[in-house]
Amino acid sequence: MSYDTPKDRAPLPLLGAVPEVPVERADAARNRRLLLDTAQRLVREKGVRSLTMDELARRAGVGKGTVFRRFGTRSGLLVALLDHSEQKFQGAFLFGPPPLGPGAPPVRRLVAFGRARLLDIEVEGELHRAAELGEAEQRYRNPPYNVSRVHVTTLLREAGAPGDPRLLADALLAPLAAALVMHQLHDLGYTRDEIADNWETLARRASVPE
Amino acid sequence: MSYDTPKDRAPLPLLGAVPEVPVERADAARNRRLLLDTAQRLVREKGVRSLTMDELARRAGVGKGTVFRRFGTRSGLLVALLDHSEQKFQGAFLFGPPPLGPGAPPVRRLVAFGRARLLDIEVEGELHRAAELGEAEQRYRNPPYNVSRVHVTTLLREAGAPGDPRLLADALLAPLAAALVMHQLHDLGYTRDEIADNWETLARRASVPE
Repeated sequence: MSYDTPKDRAPLPLLGAVPEVPVERADAARNRRLLLDTAQRLVREKGVRSLTMDELARRAGVGKGTVFRRFGTRSGLLVALLDHSEQKFQGAFLFGPPPLGPGAPPVRRLVAFGRARLLDIEVEGELHRAAELGEAEQRYRNPPYNVSRVHVTTLLREAGAPGDPRLLADALLAPLAAALVMHQLHDLGYTRDEIADNWETLARRASVPE
Repeated sequence: MSYDTPKDRAPLPLLGAVPEVPVERADAARNRRLLLDTAQRLVREKGVRSLTMDELARRAGVGKGTVFRRFGTRSGLLVALLDHSEQKFQGAFLFGPPPLGPGAPPVRRLVAFGRARLLDIEVEGELHRAAELGEAEQRYRNPPYNVSRVHVTTLLREAGAPGDPRLLADALLAPLAAALVMHQLHDLGYTRDEIADNWETLARRASVPE
């Protein structure tokens, strides 16, 4: 099955399909994209902390006023950048060149997807922090999570699972987070057994020694 | 490696290791545990929605006043129940009988861990909702998440991965969530490449046809 046909492509709820300012002139939209591309490069090169209104103006070779008029505040800039990155990312994995886009074998595309997803993730992380959704990060510092992580890490090490057992433990614990499971149970209508079976398959495969 | 020795066991930050009311009499503590055990059974049998102060009093055969004096509000009851379930769960996977506890092979213990973790997860989900952390669930209903899920689901189906491709897609997307990756980068000191390598290993293994 593939959705790489116009018929299947249409209903996908692409971000930004409806422009927020329909009357924005073409050159204004282009300048905005150029600014956000510069912001994205800055974040990828030097981390999200280095993205300030001043630094963006300097790198883009525009006046500070332009950046402030365009995005209002640094938070506004981060929100716009997240949306921009997400749109570029979607365009790349749906319609772009392989291996991320169509044309490569599925597992190569899957791997390219995960790596690309991690590229701009710090923008989202910084926004979480700004919105005090840092609570989400807090979860991973809390004793209960840590006890589970130590336990699963130990089991993976004993089983001889490949790679870094602590990162693998995080990866296996992530699908067991309450918010995702609630969504699967109540929005998607899966049963707890189906969710558990799926997790078991993944955990067994992850644990096989190299 | 194992932490099933007293020396390694000691530093684990067990929940509830310090009683919140040190002067609580032994019989009061026992009654509290009995109430919470009843609440846990009620949730497992009939779902978290059925857990009301009235229903708990009825099932436990105590007066409503006892339940209110003990937990204050339904939220207070849910918080106490989450802590209680977490403590029992930790006790079971660290010191309890196999396959969850020591004595079974690591992969069997891992599988038992995941299944047990899913048993009481709705208590945590309900607390999230009460605390308006429902935002966390909201994430999975949003267009950007959905586009990624459709994409990964399609790739997994094309690759012939076993099981339900949509649940597997969720499981592979979960470790790519910003909050977890931020924690791994900034608190644990992993590099983005290490995180990506770990994810790639997992994704490749998950994709192998049966």
